This record gives sequence, C-alpha cells and structure tokens, in this order.
Amino acid sequence: MKHARLDFASVPSAAQREAWRQTAETLRPVLQHKTVSPVSMVEQLHDPDAWQGIRVIPVAAAAELPNRRWRKGDSFILDFGEHHVGYFIFAMRIAGCYCDSPVSLRFLAAELPFELAYKAENFKGSLSQAWVQEEYVKIDELPGSIRLPRRYACRYLRVDVLATPDTLVFDRIEFDTVAAVNALPETPSSLSGIEREIYLTGCRTLRDCMQSCFEDGPKRDRRLWLGDLYLEAKVNAVTYRRFDLVERCIYLLAANVDEHGMLPACAFENSNIQTNCYIPDYALLFPALLLEHYTACGNREIVEEFYPLAVHQAELFQTFLQEEECLLKKAPGYWFFVDHAPGLEKDTAEYCIYLFSLRNLAELARLLHFPEDEARFLHEYRHWRELLRARTIDPGNGMLRSGVTGQISEASQIWGVLSGVFTPGEGRHALKRMEELAETVRSCNPYLYHYLLEAYLVCGEEEKARKLIDDYWGGMIRLGADTFWEVFDPSGTAPVLYGDIYLVSACHAWSCTPCFFLRRWHDADSGNASFPSPIPSVQ
Amino acid sequence: MKHARLDFASVPSAAQREAWRQTAETLRPVLQHKTVSPVSMVEQLHDPDAWQGIRVIPVAAAAELPNRRWRKGDSFILDFGEHHVGYFIFAMRIAGCYCDSPVSLRFLAAELPFELAYKAENFKGSLSQAWVQEEYVKIDELPGSIRLPRRYACRYLRVDVLATPDTLVFDRIEFDTVAAVNALPETPSSLSGIEREIYLTGCRTLRDCMQSCFEDGPKRDRRLWLGDLYLEAKVNAVTYRRFDLVERCIYLLAANVDEHGMLPACAFENSNIQTNCYIPDYALLFPALLLEHYTACGNREIVEEFYPLAVHQAELFQTFLQEEECLLKKAPGYWFFVDHAPGLEKDTAEYCIYLFSLRNLAELARLLHFPEDEARFLHEYRHWRELLRARTIDPGNGMLRSGVTGQISEASQIWGVLSGVFTPGEGRHALKRMEELAETVRSCNPYLYHYLLEAYLVCGEEEKARKLIDDYWGGMIRLGADTFWEVFDPSGTAPVLYGDIYLVSACHAWSCTPCFFLRRWHDADSGNASFPSPIPSVQ
Repeated sequence: MKHARLDFASVPSAAQREAWRQTAETLRPVLQHKTVSPVSMVEQLHDPDAWQGIRVIPVAAAAELPNRRWRKGDSFILDFGEHHVGYFIFAMRIAGCYCDSPVSLRFLAAELPFELAYKAENFKGSLSQAWVQEEYVKIDELPGSIRLPRRYACRYLRVDVLATPDTLVFDRIEFDTVAAVNALPETPSSLSGIEREIYLTGCRTLRDCMQSCFEDGPKRDRRLWLGDLYLEAKVNAVTYRRFDLVERCIYLLAANVDEHGMLPACAFENSNIQTNCYIPDYALLFPALLLEHYTACGNREIVEEFYPLAVHQAELFQTFLQEEECLLKKAPGYWFFVDHAPGLEKDTAEYCIYLFSLRNLAELARLLHFPEDEARFLHEYRHWRELLRARTIDPGNGMLRSGVTGQISEASQIWGVLSGVFTPGEGRHALKRMEELAETVRSCNPYLYHYLLEAYLVCGEEEKARKLIDDYWGGMIRLGADTFWEVFDPSGTAPVLYGDIYLVSACHAWSCTPCFFLRRWHDADSGNASFPSPIPSVQ
Repeated sequence: MKHARLDFASVPSAAQREAWRQTAETLRPVLQHKTVSPVSMVEQLHDPDAWQGIRVIPVAAAAELPNRRWRKGDSFILDFGEHHVGYFIFAMRIAGCYCDSPVSLRFLAAELPFELAYKAENFKGSLSQAWVQEEYVKIDELPGSIRLPRRYACRYLRVDVLATPDTLVFDRIEFDTVAAVNALPETPSSLSGIEREIYLTGCRTLRDCMQSCFEDGPKRDRRLWLGDLYLEAKVNAVTYRRFDLVERCIYLLAANVDEHGMLPACAFENSNIQTNCYIPDYALLFPALLLEHYTACGNREIVEEFYPLAVHQAELFQTFLQEEECLLKKAPGYWFFVDHAPGLEKDTAEYCIYLFSLRNLAELARLLHFPEDEARFLHEYRHWRELLRARTIDPGNGMLRSGVTGQISEASQIWGVLSGVFTPGEGRHALKRMEELAETVRSCNPYLYHYLLEAYLVCGEEEKARKLIDDYWGGMIRLGADTFWEVFDPSGTAPVLYGDIYLVSACHAWSCTPCFFLRRWHDADSGNASFPSPIPSVQ
C-alpha cells in the first residue's frame, strides 16, 4: 500500500450520518444547574504589574447589593468568586415600586479583569465582534425577575444602568450555572501547593467546557472541536469519567463528515448548521481518540463501528503527501493547523501526525484482530518514516527541519518524538537543542505544550515535564487564573488571537491536560496503575 | 350639598377591586395578527422643507432584500408602507451557510423618518431613554428565523450590522402586527379628499392603540390612561364598536383606585405594577365616559355598577375647591393636567371640568331614576357656576381668566364652554376673542383641540370645527403623517415633550377624534342619525 487508492465506497451515506446524529441525540446529557451568588462588589484598577495591566479590588460585600440605589449612568461590577458558565438572573424593582417606563441595561460578562474595560468602538478582531460578552437589554415591567436568554462564561459581571424611570434596585443577581457535571472531582491526596492548584484549575476548566458536548471554550467557539476533544477525553478519563459525553461527541463528528468522508474539525449540535472547517491533522487524531477511549472505558462496539472511518481519515490524508520532498501538496479548502505560531512551516509536523495516526491504526487493527490491516499500516508507517528521516533530519544538529525554508520549530521536534520518527535518544537530544536554539519557532499554545509534555515522557524526561507544568500552567495561576487560558506566553506578553485580545478565551479545554499527568503520576506513585506509554510502540 | 362630606364608605374594598380585576381579565381580547412585509428599501435625507428636517426616499423594492449581502458596518432601512404595532421576524443566514460565530445587530424602529437618525449619546429627555425603540440583539445560530421578543410601533425599521462572521443575508424580514381589531372600518361614502385621509388616519391611529387595552400610544407609555380612554371610546363607538374593550378598561381603572377611592390617571395590566399617577381632571371625566358608553351600546348594568364610583370622583374633587377665589388648593401627590401648554394656569379649567362632571352625573342620576341625586348635583352645579362666573369672567372682554395672574388661555375658554359656565353666545364670543388675543396661552395638543371641536359645536360654530380639522389634523397629513401625533404645532416647529423629541409619540390615541365628528356629520347628512349634543344640558 505505498499509494493506496482512496476508497470512496467508505464514505458514510446520508442515512448513516443521520443514524449517527440520532445516536448522538440519545446521548445528550442532562445539564446540572447550580445557583452561584456573587461574592463581592469590586472595582477595576490599572496596575502595570497585573496580568494585562488590570486587576480588581473588592469594595463591598455582595450582600450590600440590595441596599444600593442606581440611577442612569451608574455602574458596578460583581465578582462571582470563580469562573462559571451559565445564565444570569436579575430580581429588580424601582425604589417606590413604580415603574412607568422600561429599564435599559448594559451587561459585560468577563473571564479576566481586563475584559471589564472593553469598549466596542476599539475592537479590531477578525472574528465576529459578537463573541464579546457585551449585552444590551431592556426590561419592560418591574418589579420582576428576568433571566437573560443567552449563556455566558465568566467570573465577573459589569452592569451599566443606561436608562431607568427612577431609582433602580437590584434585590438579587444570581448566576444559574450549568455543566454536564456537578462537583469537581476529588484532588489526588499526594498533590499539594501549586500542583494541587493546577489540578483544581484544570478540573474547573474542563467542567466549564463540559456542556451538551465537549466545547473548546465556553466563551468563544462554544462548540465541539476534534483536536480539543482528543485532549478533553484524556482528562475526562482520569477525572469525571463521563464516557457517554465522549461518545456523543464521536457520533456528532461522524454525522458531519464531508462528501469525501473526512471528519470535520468542528461540529455544531444544531443540525441546521453545517461546518466548512476541515483540519486534516485533527482528523488524523481520530484513531488515537478511539484507542484511548477503548483503553479508558472498554467499549469495544464503538471502536468496531468507527474503525472504517478512522482508517479512511489516513487514506484521505495520503492525497496531501508527496515523496520527493516531504512537503504538503496544495489543499484548497483545508486548514493545516498543528499550532497557532505565526509563520510556522507545518509540513514536517503534518507528516509526523500522519505517522502517529498510522501507529494508532495499527494498534486498533491488532485490537480488533485484523492482522492484514495491521501489517499494511506498519508497512506504510515504515515507508514514510524512512523517507521523512532522510529528507528532513538535519545531519548537522539532529533536528527536524520543515518546509521549503528548512525551518526548525518546537512543533516539528515534538511530533518527531510522538510519531516515532526520532528514537527516544534522538528525541531527547532534539528537545534539548530546541530549547537552546534561538531560531526555533516557539509556541504560546497549551495545545502544543500538551504534546511537549507527552514527548518529554516518551524520551524519559519526566522532570522536564514536571517543570513545564509548574512553569507554564503554574505561571497562569500565579497571574490569577482560575481556569486555564487558550494561549499563554510566560514571557509576560498577552498573546493575541484573531486580531483582538478580547477574542481570546480564558477557559479553554485544551489547556486542562496537566490534570491527566498529575493524576497518572499520583496513581503510579500510589501503586494503583502503571503509567502507560502515550503512544503504541512499533515493532 | 354645598360642602358635601367625603363618604369614605364608598371607597371600594380590596375584595371589590380584585373582583373588578378578574372581570377585566375575562374581557381580555384575543389579539389579531397580520403579517406585513416591507414595501421598499429607503434612504433618509436631510431636507429643510421636510417635517423635522428629514425625509426618506425609496432606493429599491423590498423584494431586493434577499439579493443583498451585508458586512460589518453596513446598514439599511425598510419602509413597511404604514404605521403598525407588532413583532419583527427575521429569517437570516450566512452566505455559504456557515455561521461560526454570533451575529450582532442594532435595530431602530421609527414612527417618523427623523427617528432614524437617533444617536443614544445625544438624548436629553427626562423620561427613561429606554422608550426609544433602539435594540441590540445577538443571534447565536444561523441559518434561522428569530422573532424579537419586544413589541414596536413603527413604519420604518433601520438595521445596522454590528458584527457578523461572514456575509449576512436577510432572506425575509416581516412585521407580525397585532391589534385588538383587524381591518380598518369602512370610510363614510360622503368623505373625500383630505377628509377621507383624515378619517383613515384616525382609524389607523386608533387601531394601533387598541391592544389588550386602549393604550395612549403604542410607542411610549403603552398603557391605559383615563383621559385618553374617554376620547378613544367616543371614536370606537362610531368605528370599531369594541365595547368589550371599553368595559375591560373601565374595570382595570376601577381595580386601581387609590386608598381614597380616586380613579388612577393610568393603570397597568400587570397587577404587580401599581400606578402612583393621579390626575383629578381625568377622574372627573369618568361620569361622562359611563354616560357615553351607555348611549353608544346600552349596557345599563355597568353604569349601575360604577355610578357610586363616578359620584365619588366628584366628591373627592371638592377637597381641592375653595369659594373665595376659585383657585385650586394645594394637592400634593396629584397632577392637574388639562393640557401640556407650558405655564398654563389650570385653576379655572379644573373648576369647569368639575362642573362638566356634575352635569354628567345629573344626567346619569336621571337615567338611573335617582331624582334626589339629580337635584343635588344640579344644585351643586348652579352654586359653583355662579361663583365661577363672578370670580373669573373678565367683565372687560368677556373671557375666563385663571389663576393668581388672571391668565387667559385656550383651555379656560374651551372648558368654559363645555361646562356651561358660558352661555353659547358668550362662548362663541370668547372662542373668537381667544383667536385674536395675542396673550392667549395656546396649546399644541390634539387632546385639548378635541375639546375645542366640541366647544365649537356647542356654540353652533360647525364651520370653525371643520376648518380646525382641516388645518390641524389635515396639516399633519400634509406633512406625511399616517397616524396622528401626540403633539403638533401647525406653525411649523416640532413640539418637544419630556425634554427630548425622541420621546414624542407619533401615534397617539387622543389625536384620533376627527373620525368621531366626520362620522357623525356624515350620518347626520345622510339622515341616519341626529348629531347629539356632546354634553347634557342643564335645565
């Protein structure tokens, strides 16, 4: 199978996709509600030492709220103590009980203090400005209680009184929080200090992303992404263990394959909305997702059901490969992602992820007793591994280069390790050199840094993994995070995505994976479980 | 009964008020829905010759809308052809069917073209700015159809695209209009030209105010006012004849009497909202409302039920009277209205309205066969009429003066006629002098000008009444009105209420009364009915 032909016969039929959608629907979770009250009224302060230059200080207990009177032009900020996802409820009245005209309010729900300073006219982003959690609401009849219809992800809520017939009173403001899970899981007893904080913060991050599907971030995107799901499923397996929700997501993704049978990068729960976002390196993670799901919960049926689709993802990826230079062919309509790093040459990492996919497929074939398939995948794996080593390893420094410029990046070295293109010894060397080499294209992305943690472990560098968790994820906590952020640059600048800092999500599921490592280390230390190799080995 | 004592025994009990509220509920109308589509896409133009300096011109057929593509920063205006009240429905999609983020829109519903230029930051009004029909809405999922939850009164709709993930398409924008009545009534066949236009415009105005109660204006206030109801009931009697809705409003008002038994100036349909607005001259109209309702539909039971409450309104008003100077006593918590004219001295008009009330009460007593009551009211009437004539008629010019400054106003002369303080001959003279006298405090208010029409008829000045209808109400139509406005100054300036022109209602029920006169004149000309005297005569 050097150049296997695409097997269009394995493109799922419309009837098959509809059946998958229906199965996903039967797995829809009942959301758990918990009413959260504000802890304090706060004010925002400019502070050059604070993360993003703004922090909040408490100015009154939240219990003071019903005693305050508000007029047009007034505003206040509530702190709900920690990040949550949910719906706001306001019990309001006009002092004196007479409301002769509507009330007009502006709300700004904020994950981080700096978001409280948002002004719509300064927005520069390339994604829809509607992601910013700013809302204008009119209330026609008071006294009464209203529940805002849209969902927010936040810790802080700013309220601006834009118009009121008379003095306005908020008797109660509550946050009806929702998640597929309720309580945070128990923290491993051996964890303490910053590791305990990291574990809790990761669990809170995942909780707030576990809604009616695994979302990437509950503030922005708010939907199921295949790459994020793969990491969320890993953490879920050692924390909440809601395997039903993982399976719902697998069915939702499968229901949204394109006309070639490629799994989408993301899927919408509303069947009226069809994604057009396809990330081949995400689709290549599907075999690993199935394998880890089976390992965690033992559901062999779902692996059998989706094995052909998993194989098909690798088959589809072959159309992007070319042997001569190990560069990607042009692929209009597809987005090669790997990482957000600007200017990243992705070819080598993509080839490595293809190899990673083949290793997982071989393991799935072994599990399902398809020895011919297993042999075929291993044959294909060895063929491309040799090519890639010959074409992209720099004989001078032993590092993987990528693209026409021969770029050296963290992404290439990390996936070089995880794909097995590097031997562990070569990998250990490349990961060390990459730290030292100034020209290395670096990431500020917890998604890639999760794979760096895995790569360290493959190379036997557990201490480096522990240090990375402390430096990078611990770094966010030392800056005030109570959920982990979508992007983070520990050098002190706040990375911008999509052209505006207000678009960046401060609770992003792909950042929660230290929980996975901390839990597994705890279990291994306690003699409860061996720490499995994150990727199948190739004989 | 020179100084009758207040009879607190006739203050309705809480149980009585609740029973009235329940009766009102049984009379709640089923609202009629009619889907109205836009007629054209228009642009607004500054034009010093247009009313309020802004007019619109059509730029495309509304059928073009689905072919247009909109991006952030775009806006457009739809003209729905005529004024309506209802709910907007938007069927939207993202071109290419992919919506990866919410859409953010601003809507501005406008009764008149100048409202389309509204900018929130320039608002100066004293009432809640939330009355302005500006709305910010976010839509999370497209394609789809949304129905805005709040009700609007407008002819025009401006849409601003604030944020969209991609090119936005409006496949359909519809106005789900509501009113207690459906079709406009037949126009009297003898009407033509501007009179026909005035009749139609008045009927449209009343239709849009006939919701689950008779509202004053469907844009601002949006509630039942006693003074407005009196005029609406008059027009309803010769057009829609929805006497059930009049009765619902009588019960709603009665259910909201204050602790002294005074009828409120306005009432809310939501029983959780208690008005604190009491206008004694509105309460004094209650006997006339009952009498005209009986005359129009013959329901004697409701007149019997509310006769004691009607009497009580006049009894309560006695506390504001004093014989020596015919000035009003201080009455904290009460609003003497009569008219909006700035600086108006209201004493004399208020005394006259008290006398008007006594004449109507005497007629009610005669109808219900209470001869002692009738005599008592007529005795009281004659007593105060003589006092008022002696104290306030200027022997020099034969006009009624008012207040400590002896002010001459339209309001005093008009109510002097309607109360019978003037004989018809004296009244004819006073109405003529008032036109000529420069110092006269004039109105810009259709509410008072309705009573001027009535006063002209009492004095046998039908031609003047016809001319006033043509000049004043016809004047609005010549300026583009398709419903009659809350205030209008035919001299060319746009009157401002409550500190900002954007608060003024352009569809206000108290302006619809020319229909009443035009219909009655038509009937009289056709020999169908005699034109009754608007007020009972005193023997």
